[in-house]
Amino acid sequence: MEANCSKKIKVAGLQTVVTADKDVNLENLRELLNDPILEGIDIVCLPEMWNCPYDIKNFATYAEADGGELCQELSKLAKEHNIYLQAGTVPEVDEKGKIYNTAYMFDRAGQKIGKYRKMHLFDIFASGEIVFKESDVLTGGDHFELADTEWGPIAINICFDIRFPESSRIPALAGAKVIINPGAFNMTTGPVHWQLGFRQRAIENQVFMIGTAPARDSGAGYKSWGHSIVTDPWGDILYELDEKPGIGIAELDLDYLDRVRQRMPLMSARRTDVYEVKEK
Amino acid sequence: MEANCSKKIKVAGLQTVVTADKDVNLENLRELLNDPILEGIDIVCLPEMWNCPYDIKNFATYAEADGGELCQELSKLAKEHNIYLQAGTVPEVDEKGKIYNTAYMFDRAGQKIGKYRKMHLFDIFASGEIVFKESDVLTGGDHFELADTEWGPIAINICFDIRFPESSRIPALAGAKVIINPGAFNMTTGPVHWQLGFRQRAIENQVFMIGTAPARDSGAGYKSWGHSIVTDPWGDILYELDEKPGIGIAELDLDYLDRVRQRMPLMSARRTDVYEVKEK
Repeated sequence: MEANCSKKIKVAGLQTVVTADKDVNLENLRELLNDPILEGIDIVCLPEMWNCPYDIKNFATYAEADGGELCQELSKLAKEHNIYLQAGTVPEVDEKGKIYNTAYMFDRAGQKIGKYRKMHLFDIFASGEIVFKESDVLTGGDHFELADTEWGPIAINICFDIRFPESSRIPALAGAKVIINPGAFNMTTGPVHWQLGFRQRAIENQVFMIGTAPARDSGAGYKSWGHSIVTDPWGDILYELDEKPGIGIAELDLDYLDRVRQRMPLMSARRTDVYEVKEK
Repeated sequence: MEANCSKKIKVAGLQTVVTADKDVNLENLRELLNDPILEGIDIVCLPEMWNCPYDIKNFATYAEADGGELCQELSKLAKEHNIYLQAGTVPEVDEKGKIYNTAYMFDRAGQKIGKYRKMHLFDIFASGEIVFKESDVLTGGDHFELADTEWGPIAINICFDIRFPESSRIPALAGAKVIINPGAFNMTTGPVHWQLGFRQRAIENQVFMIGTAPARDSGAGYKSWGHSIVTDPWGDILYELDEKPGIGIAELDLDYLDRVRQRMPLMSARRTDVYEVKEK
């Protein structure tokens, strides 16, 4: 591979329909990965909870163990298509029966190169509006994750994490120039905070942000805002879908990222003599 | 004062014209403070470098010592009008001859209750666009600042600081529910990053953000974006001016802030077991 080529990453975000049938969701993914539009794509990103309707009642029922059938299948798909597969998130159950909202990442050889468990669980309280309390059934992850790729480390955040600047700051300081954030904002928070969050995290860390959401199902209990998005290090939007099923395609130019960082050297201008931000 | 009254803060941002004459700028401020529109205002905020055209060549010439004539005058004005005066920023010279971009704050009695020196100096490099290097002539501050007010601690950031999430995060964690950020973005960064930054810092810290900029002088070397702004803890914009001289007025409802924090408890959802953000 020429050096020139390796500085551009072709990514696709699949804004999929989530049905109540896990097998159907996987079959749909299989079909989508054969879409000719994905020819030459380096990284395919899936939505948060793409195989399980987003409802705290479902997580335990749909959960599978790390390394189980689903993981094996995702690994095979990554290898078969010669892609990095950031498999959105799925409910994971561990050996003690704890449930997590987990994001796996596989490389072109089908190796699992990343596993991130959602750290900030989504608890929201309101009268007459969306109410959701993930922490009733989920356990939060306890560490950040960088997946080692041919373009350097890529970080994974999940949905609500984006509201916490630490979630992107710490991986960015560790060298991530791309942060993948599968997420499912809702009809209350989506219109006001979704795009803004991706843009600002990209700007302040001078990274590419990739957000992939489920398509909206107007009959679902939790209605996804959709609007899968990619933002560049200047905060420009490379694509933003609407609420319908669709595929977003973007090219992440790491040379452009370097130019943004040279032009306004934010990362080196941090006052590390005055403050610190770090994983404990 | 009734408890009910004390939960609402009336603020005004003065988007002033900056002339090359320091005395004229002060005289203009004196006149503006007599504007009947400011009747009953609790906190008056001024722009970054409201008494000195924003140019690194000017800072040393315009600089005054802390406690000097200018500070005394600002103190008097605060007392005379029974206001908290966040006196934007002015160039300050210390006993060693070092120059700072400094934000003072005075209370209703004219006491100086806050002094913050810009921590992140604005260095930007570009071809054919704005180029500015504050660090050639300015020294950066070395600590955060909380001003103690009748509504609790209020933090001060300055302009470029807003790009660094730590600058608002650390004061917010220390209890600030209002962050005052005098700033002068330019015609390159203003249109794309100014409003976004204020909205996101407000959302992620669930605080009120107050940004006050100089009015645009189309003949100036550094053209201010203007657009003085106040954003609430949900990211809504209470006012945003255009580029012309003007006064913005907003009421900060601390009960609303509490409701936003109850609805989506971001501050308590931080994973303090996994990461930390702190002043050294």
